[in-house]
Amino acid sequence: MQNFVLYNPTKIIFGTDTVGEIGPETAALGRKILLVYGQGSIRRNGVYEQVLASLAAAGLEISEHGGVVSNPLLSHVRAGIELAKKKQVEAVVAVGGGSVIDSAKAIAAGALVEHDVWQFFKAKKSIRKTLPLTCVLTLAAAGSEMNGGMVLTNDETRHKFGVGNRLLCPRVSILDPTLTFTVPPDYTAYGAVDAIAHILEFYFTTRDPATPVQDRFMEGLVINIMASCEQVLANPSDYQGRADLMWAATLALNGWTAAGLGMVGFPMHMIEHSLSALYNIAHGAGLSIVMPAWMRRQARLRPGKFSQFGQRVFNLAGSEESCAMAGIKCLEEWFARVNSPTSLSQVGISAADIPVIAENALALARIWRLNGYGKEVIMDILARASA
Amino acid sequence: MQNFVLYNPTKIIFGTDTVGEIGPETAALGRKILLVYGQGSIRRNGVYEQVLASLAAAGLEISEHGGVVSNPLLSHVRAGIELAKKKQVEAVVAVGGGSVIDSAKAIAAGALVEHDVWQFFKAKKSIRKTLPLTCVLTLAAAGSEMNGGMVLTNDETRHKFGVGNRLLCPRVSILDPTLTFTVPPDYTAYGAVDAIAHILEFYFTTRDPATPVQDRFMEGLVINIMASCEQVLANPSDYQGRADLMWAATLALNGWTAAGLGMVGFPMHMIEHSLSALYNIAHGAGLSIVMPAWMRRQARLRPGKFSQFGQRVFNLAGSEESCAMAGIKCLEEWFARVNSPTSLSQVGISAADIPVIAENALALARIWRLNGYGKEVIMDILARASA
Repeated sequence: MQNFVLYNPTKIIFGTDTVGEIGPETAALGRKILLVYGQGSIRRNGVYEQVLASLAAAGLEISEHGGVVSNPLLSHVRAGIELAKKKQVEAVVAVGGGSVIDSAKAIAAGALVEHDVWQFFKAKKSIRKTLPLTCVLTLAAAGSEMNGGMVLTNDETRHKFGVGNRLLCPRVSILDPTLTFTVPPDYTAYGAVDAIAHILEFYFTTRDPATPVQDRFMEGLVINIMASCEQVLANPSDYQGRADLMWAATLALNGWTAAGLGMVGFPMHMIEHSLSALYNIAHGAGLSIVMPAWMRRQARLRPGKFSQFGQRVFNLAGSEESCAMAGIKCLEEWFARVNSPTSLSQVGISAADIPVIAENALALARIWRLNGYGKEVIMDILARASA
Repeated sequence: MQNFVLYNPTKIIFGTDTVGEIGPETAALGRKILLVYGQGSIRRNGVYEQVLASLAAAGLEISEHGGVVSNPLLSHVRAGIELAKKKQVEAVVAVGGGSVIDSAKAIAAGALVEHDVWQFFKAKKSIRKTLPLTCVLTLAAAGSEMNGGMVLTNDETRHKFGVGNRLLCPRVSILDPTLTFTVPPDYTAYGAVDAIAHILEFYFTTRDPATPVQDRFMEGLVINIMASCEQVLANPSDYQGRADLMWAATLALNGWTAAGLGMVGFPMHMIEHSLSALYNIAHGAGLSIVMPAWMRRQARLRPGKFSQFGQRVFNLAGSEESCAMAGIKCLEEWFARVNSPTSLSQVGISAADIPVIAENALALARIWRLNGYGKEVIMDILARASA
């Protein structure tokens, strides 16, 4: 285990009938608020009305900024920042999944500076303060509801960049599993894939010394994400399955598993960001394409860890190499079972595009300082993912 | 999973060479401080000097309240409160294990009220504010460094009571595994036993609905606590083993495993408190006596959960009943292997004392509202533990 500092001050309110807490919790942070949401699913399933009623009952002055798309866009965030400044809002409320929460975080940070918000993503400026943020989560996937990360796509340059800062942690996040009953099967699966990817990025990029406490925690999460995802695909209104999936997805990226791991990489996300930025495919779908390819490459470097994964997560036995490779195969088969794609061709991306994708990914690799990931490495991984 | 609210604002600074952070971290909270510590082990191993140097360098005005004993006493806390009031301290700094931190918490709460601090423990008064608390941990055991619980023994009535309140969470806790290199083998083992007990209280007293995410987390912690304890008993200066044990013990009782479990009991602690209150045995030693006895009784009520424990923690296979009972046996044998007692007779407590012990435990059972734990039940458990 390596030295670490852990401080996660997000208050989680988890369970049924908790949406009504958003008004009082937000009122403690500010009176003039900006309500950020997506494309209308919250209007269809009644969540919008519940949230608005709670905010209104708490006496809040509400400005609205709807229309966040998945793979959220810088241009839309910039408009939100303008509105937040004009209305002099004191707090931001996000109602949605990771795209909405990330947009709200960017607005919360961007509203307090004069420079363009993209400067944060290019690591040209540091975040020093933010408006307080509260969230009502509607999708088990990104983990943004309990961490200080955010990802945006620059619609001009087609770069999808991410940035992390403790100040971006929401003050309060409300996690009501019933709000995810209406998430369709494809996005339910993509959310599970995203959460698994968050865990495996950490799990497979740590180096010595070993982290046995964190390993068991991560392995347990992967097992539970797969099990609960299958449960809710079979029965979308299975409350316990939705609850397990929602909480496990939050835990996958709230800092608890990563504490003590030291420097970890995010190579799969780095490469996937280029797929969703260039082709606008779902982030989870891109990850299930990149993951097995990256894992097969990485397994040569860390065979012991991959073998441990196969043994503990899929109950495999045998030689180190066979457990390692069979574990990757099992995961890939699970992706296929939940209808998440496992090759570029399945989503209509041609192998001929690989150099262009790799070039795009390199821009992020440079900012994230993923040394060793030159264009050849990225192209090799994409080639493995193309068939 | 059941509804929950999770909010743990303790900042953890973990690793080597972190003790020097105590000065600056505390200075951000107050200038006049009370330094609480134990019986002198921190003077022998040099931690006292390190802490004092850091506090002095930060310009703090220090009052000292040493002499906390294990199974910490109300009388000593009362004296600390008196000193804190007289010196008008603005923050409390604890340097030690659970006993020291719990005493510091009681002082931090008691210094701001006019009534006697024991009123909190009798549930006659509620904690509404506390002085800010920072900690330097020197023992992997209680978990008090990252939770809102505290336990004291009333030296007049010989009642050992506990109370929990979010305001008791330390603001900052420094966990340097090297500080535990000098913990002797017996207390190293008792600490591991204590941490395992914290996990199993939760694990075996939850009811439906199931909590598969939390279960895997708890099983992984038990596996790692046993492994790392054996590692450091073999080599007391094994940094990685000390680090794993320290962090796992913190996680065992910081609210992460319990989130979503609903109402859980603390029956083993309740009964053990009477052993350490009446006979002043080490808390961990008392727990390894009570645990197998309580588990054998409880296994009849929750055979499936006990079987799961045996299978996942000790890799057992077979019928539900055989896995359940063999799992308890394996744990009991592990206690014996690390020289933690497993029967009352081993610590010189006669079976003839059982009615008196049960009477003492009942006083706490009433306050903690452990319904169903009448005197007969407690006597039955103690009788199972006596041979």
